[in-house]
Amino acid sequence: MNRPTTSPSTAALDGAGFDSADVLARVAEVIASRRGGDPERSYVARLFHKGTDTILKKVGEEATEVVLAAKDGDPAKIVYEVADLWFHSMVALAQFGLGPADVVAELARREGLSGLQEFAQRSTRPPA
Amino acid sequence: MNRPTTSPSTAALDGAGFDSADVLARVAEVIASRRGGDPERSYVARLFHKGTDTILKKVGEEATEVVLAAKDGDPAKIVYEVADLWFHSMVALAQFGLGPADVVAELARREGLSGLQEFAQRSTRPPA
Amino acid sequence: MNRPTTSPSTAALDGAGFDSADVLARVAEVIASRRGGDPERSYVARLFHKGTDTILKKVGEEATEVVLAAKDGDPAKIVYEVADLWFHSMVALAQFGLGPADVVAELARREGLSGLQEFAQRSTRPPA
Amino acid sequence: MNRPTTSPSTAALDGAGFDSADVLARVAEVIASRRGGDPERSYVARLFHKGTDTILKKVGEEATEVVLAAKDGDPAKIVYEVADLWFHSMVALAQFGLGPADVVAELARREGLSGLQEFAQRSTRPPA
Repeated sequence: MNRPTTSPSTAALDGAGFDSADVLARVAEVIASRRGGDPERSYVARLFHKGTDTILKKVGEEATEVVLAAKDGDPAKIVYEVADLWFHSMVALAQFGLGPADVVAELARREGLSGLQEFAQRSTRPPA
Repeated sequence: MNRPTTSPSTAALDGAGFDSADVLARVAEVIASRRGGDPERSYVARLFHKGTDTILKKVGEEATEVVLAAKDGDPAKIVYEVADLWFHSMVALAQFGLGPADVVAELARREGLSGLQEFAQRSTRPPA
Repeated sequence: MNRPTTSPSTAALDGAGFDSADVLARVAEVIASRRGGDPERSYVARLFHKGTDTILKKVGEEATEVVLAAKDGDPAKIVYEVADLWFHSMVALAQFGLGPADVVAELARREGLSGLQEFAQRSTRPPA
Repeated sequence: MNRPTTSPSTAALDGAGFDSADVLARVAEVIASRRGGDPERSYVARLFHKGTDTILKKVGEEATEVVLAAKDGDPAKIVYEVADLWFHSMVALAQFGLGPADVVAELARREGLSGLQEFAQRSTRPPA
């Protein structure tokens, strides 16, 4: 990845050399911009065009690919497949007017409340 | 994305009132800190203690829960389950010495290279 | 497994020494008989009591376990996990008044129509 | 289950008008016969040609499709997708020299041992 290291946009760089918030927000913007786009020309437009089930099928599929990559113990492939999983999660979120900021807010809420300890006590988890 | 640049502490706030990079990095730190912890007291320590298969099983399970929540069309539950999915993805990443910054770097790389267009052309995706 | 080898019911034994139709039908009967049973005493009654999402979560979970077992290449575990997957599929079928005979009929239909060749041509598959 | 015992050829018919053991065994034979076949001409040959990960990806994918179909509550689609799931499970079994008879034997073993009660007590399940 080649990105300038002196520009203002690098103010919030994390260890990997860029801002996660920026990146996730930008990916979410790109995804949103493809909604209603030409299914012939854009993979994401095609997912939206095919609808919720196709998007969710991809989420399930990418989760399986994460499992396969992790069983192979191949770091590059694991990162690649988790990126695919998160990407398609974001398409699913977008399908319902949601975005990565909502997910990050939920993760922050859990941490803020209890240092993520809530995971330790839970048996069944959905809020509803 | 418009983000205030005045206060150092709020420099990286997104719309939800906090910095995604910060949050994901902090969640990753919490996860890492639980490694080797007491499985009786920490859910995450328990996952690491049980090992890779248990962690990956959770990834698959949470993906299914995202699908279920999305089919119900319940926004709060969707966010909750995607947060669970991302959280357990991060545990899986940690199991291999990886973290969310690697995933975000991969997403940035895709965007940087081609505006995420690489998704459009792909047939089979793993790099290897 | 102890089963008499001289009774009329062994007429349709396959290579493994018993009748698949008998076994699947009997498993389906046991599953159906647990419906409405005491969730405290029966695992299957508990699944039905918790409802469709819990049952479907198990289907997703067991599929992941098949993947994990297969990546380990452990034949006994693969068989065990596929049995779990089929079992929970049958609970899901029962939840909708269906059974293994319906699935076998569908497999027979495919074979009868085209020697399973229909799989070769398909791109998207659901009938609806 | 009531099954006619008079005619040898219909001795093992179930309600749907054919023998599950026969059908599953025949499907397994068809699958096995495609191994090493032309990937251009046969879907199953293509799965074997692409290898274990592709086959397992399909198992995960079809499980998600069962979940989607069940959430829609569409009986025909549920049967269709469970048939797909079982079919691809059988391809996975074949990849390891296994078949549906092994799975049915495992289900029979569970029933024989304890009327499937073993499910009720289990916490972690794999035998190994």
